[in-house]
Amino acid sequence: MKPFKTPIITLLTDFGFKDSYVASMKGVILNINPECRVVDITHQIHPQDITEGAFVLANAFSYFPEGTIHLAVVDPEVGGARNPILIVTDRFFFIGPDNGIFSLALHEERMKSAYVLTERRFFRPEISSTFHGRDIFAPVAGHLTLGIPPKAFGKRIDSYKTLNLPDPMVKRRRLVGEVIHVDAFGNLITSIDQVTFSKFHQGRPFRIKVKNRIIPRISMGYWEGKKGELIALFGSGGFLEIAVREGNAQKRFQMKRGDKVFIEPMRDNRQTT
Amino acid sequence: MKPFKTPIITLLTDFGFKDSYVASMKGVILNINPECRVVDITHQIHPQDITEGAFVLANAFSYFPEGTIHLAVVDPEVGGARNPILIVTDRFFFIGPDNGIFSLALHEERMKSAYVLTERRFFRPEISSTFHGRDIFAPVAGHLTLGIPPKAFGKRIDSYKTLNLPDPMVKRRRLVGEVIHVDAFGNLITSIDQVTFSKFHQGRPFRIKVKNRIIPRISMGYWEGKKGELIALFGSGGFLEIAVREGNAQKRFQMKRGDKVFIEPMRDNRQTT
Amino acid sequence: MKPFKTPIITLLTDFGFKDSYVASMKGVILNINPECRVVDITHQIHPQDITEGAFVLANAFSYFPEGTIHLAVVDPEVGGARNPILIVTDRFFFIGPDNGIFSLALHEERMKSAYVLTERRFFRPEISSTFHGRDIFAPVAGHLTLGIPPKAFGKRIDSYKTLNLPDPMVKRRRLVGEVIHVDAFGNLITSIDQVTFSKFHQGRPFRIKVKNRIIPRISMGYWEGKKGELIALFGSGGFLEIAVREGNAQKRFQMKRGDKVFIEPMRDNRQTT
Repeated sequence: MKPFKTPIITLLTDFGFKDSYVASMKGVILNINPECRVVDITHQIHPQDITEGAFVLANAFSYFPEGTIHLAVVDPEVGGARNPILIVTDRFFFIGPDNGIFSLALHEERMKSAYVLTERRFFRPEISSTFHGRDIFAPVAGHLTLGIPPKAFGKRIDSYKTLNLPDPMVKRRRLVGEVIHVDAFGNLITSIDQVTFSKFHQGRPFRIKVKNRIIPRISMGYWEGKKGELIALFGSGGFLEIAVREGNAQKRFQMKRGDKVFIEPMRDNRQTT
Repeated sequence: MKPFKTPIITLLTDFGFKDSYVASMKGVILNINPECRVVDITHQIHPQDITEGAFVLANAFSYFPEGTIHLAVVDPEVGGARNPILIVTDRFFFIGPDNGIFSLALHEERMKSAYVLTERRFFRPEISSTFHGRDIFAPVAGHLTLGIPPKAFGKRIDSYKTLNLPDPMVKRRRLVGEVIHVDAFGNLITSIDQVTFSKFHQGRPFRIKVKNRIIPRISMGYWEGKKGELIALFGSGGFLEIAVREGNAQKRFQMKRGDKVFIEPMRDNRQTT
Repeated sequence: MKPFKTPIITLLTDFGFKDSYVASMKGVILNINPECRVVDITHQIHPQDITEGAFVLANAFSYFPEGTIHLAVVDPEVGGARNPILIVTDRFFFIGPDNGIFSLALHEERMKSAYVLTERRFFRPEISSTFHGRDIFAPVAGHLTLGIPPKAFGKRIDSYKTLNLPDPMVKRRRLVGEVIHVDAFGNLITSIDQVTFSKFHQGRPFRIKVKNRIIPRISMGYWEGKKGELIALFGSGGFLEIAVREGNAQKRFQMKRGDKVFIEPMRDNRQTT
């Protein structure tokens, strides 16, 4: 039960940055352990969009040092039936509502244990029904950095809610995926990961189709193609991305989350003629 | 005159985050004391909206550890007649322009002393007429963390400017409040606090009216009601809030700051028939 | 080769705050040295706008303590031909792409040495072609704080790419500048600095013209003039600014980056009549 040497707590929420909500959580954490380093992942998840929160968290969490506490609050059912939980893996701690927000990150992790947060002595004295981020999750994270063992916070559970991204599928000989996230550059990140693509592709000729536009090849970087040209490439998270060189694919082609993306095999003219 | 053990300085401004302004203030602070932890409350106060700044600060400041320095700059008269001040309460320090920005936070605090900042040796060598955040307030906050006593920074004053939120009033047997803040979820926070409501209500039947819409009850959390339904509840700051379940009340019903909210007593049918 | 005592790394990017990009960089840095203090300058540079990035960095960097590492990533050619570089001046370190992003900041600095980053052992094991911020720049910054000497990171170079703001010029007896940045208040910062203005002006009568509007004088602060009046003043960065008292010049007068600003000498009526 030694306190963390350099405690790091990340925050991911849909609270935005214009209100007092995020600062209140940081205040509560620092009040319990002023040595904590609190790092924002983002607070701009679309309100109540658990899938987006799960996606952004899954893309960020693994870069932090072992022992980091990831606190995520996208919580449409705050104060309702869903449980507040703490999940311990062999590298990290995850604290938040049990609604699937951690499930994508946990794909990569080896879980050690999970707990429903029940021990009120680690919460704030009064629990509002609308802000568990401040009244439950932040104080639990703060106390955890003091060296209090995970099992002290509640009752052990064996499973937690999971959430699946729409997996790419093969349909009529085409690989079909969809846009799962639009980043700040207007790049469209799809559900098609590099491994699934390679298995489907196997070196055969193909083309990419999205919103009736054809992209003939995978580029190596954003700088390829002419200015304004629609390109496809595997982004830094390992997923196929649709982008516009020095432009914004979302705005230019009115593309959005949920749009389908097709990988279509093509007749190989070298062999058939 | 010992330096603060773990100096924490919060920042609240209307500077936004796209320019160099906030970073300049942080640089100035760290240049004086690199051990400072600088925590953003928000930089998205509407330009020059002192009331909104005071409201957000009042909702955040008290969660921070004792000894925290709260630096707030919403300062339409920068370089003009208003005084730069330092206020010391029994728990916190407040630094910024004397224009009412601290007055809501100070409702809850016991003031010990207040000073006009006059000692130029604690400012930056050149004071621009447009950016006292960087040239006066940030360096004073930095020096304060080094253990320099408050009285060294200027001349003692007995009062500071106050700002009042529009208090809820009883008019024609109705309790009348108004929307004082819209948060990032589009929830409308009103001026009606729980104590005032309870005194007026006293267990009698009532209904809530806003923009000619009727809300028949107070909900316990955002999860109550049907998706898209207009609800009312007491939010995490203790004020009556108008919200839409899994939706945005501001956008959906074109509600905005200043809109009136009425609590209307109703004939109690159980007793009259 | 001693580690930095209080390592400070600033970040300036065009990544926005809604994605995992910024957090990934912070995670990588903290993984290498958890003692680092990472301070955001901004992540809201317009996508791929190197000039704006260079301008905001030049306005912020010098306020930080000596030894601060400034990491800037506005990098349209990521993965392409441009070099990743490290520049050492007598006060600071600059890490990022060699595309001119540092050139305005370096106007004020005395350069000691510069290096192309070639030593892959200080990068992340896999380098994506789209995210050198995470895979090259962040880990190099982290390792630098551990006391590894700059020359260990790559090959010495003698020059780096520079970028020039459009300099104000005298044309037909008028001083002509242009709007180079619009801040969050809608204030228009022009390329006309105080020294150039003073040399041109030399105490003679003048007027300022922008978008066919006349401003007759230089104000001392934003509080001058009537509410809504268009004013001109020298801002906190030393450049002529066009502003509206308690308003937004950009929105009110549809002004934007690139708009020309003229200083016109006027006949001095006191002498000619």
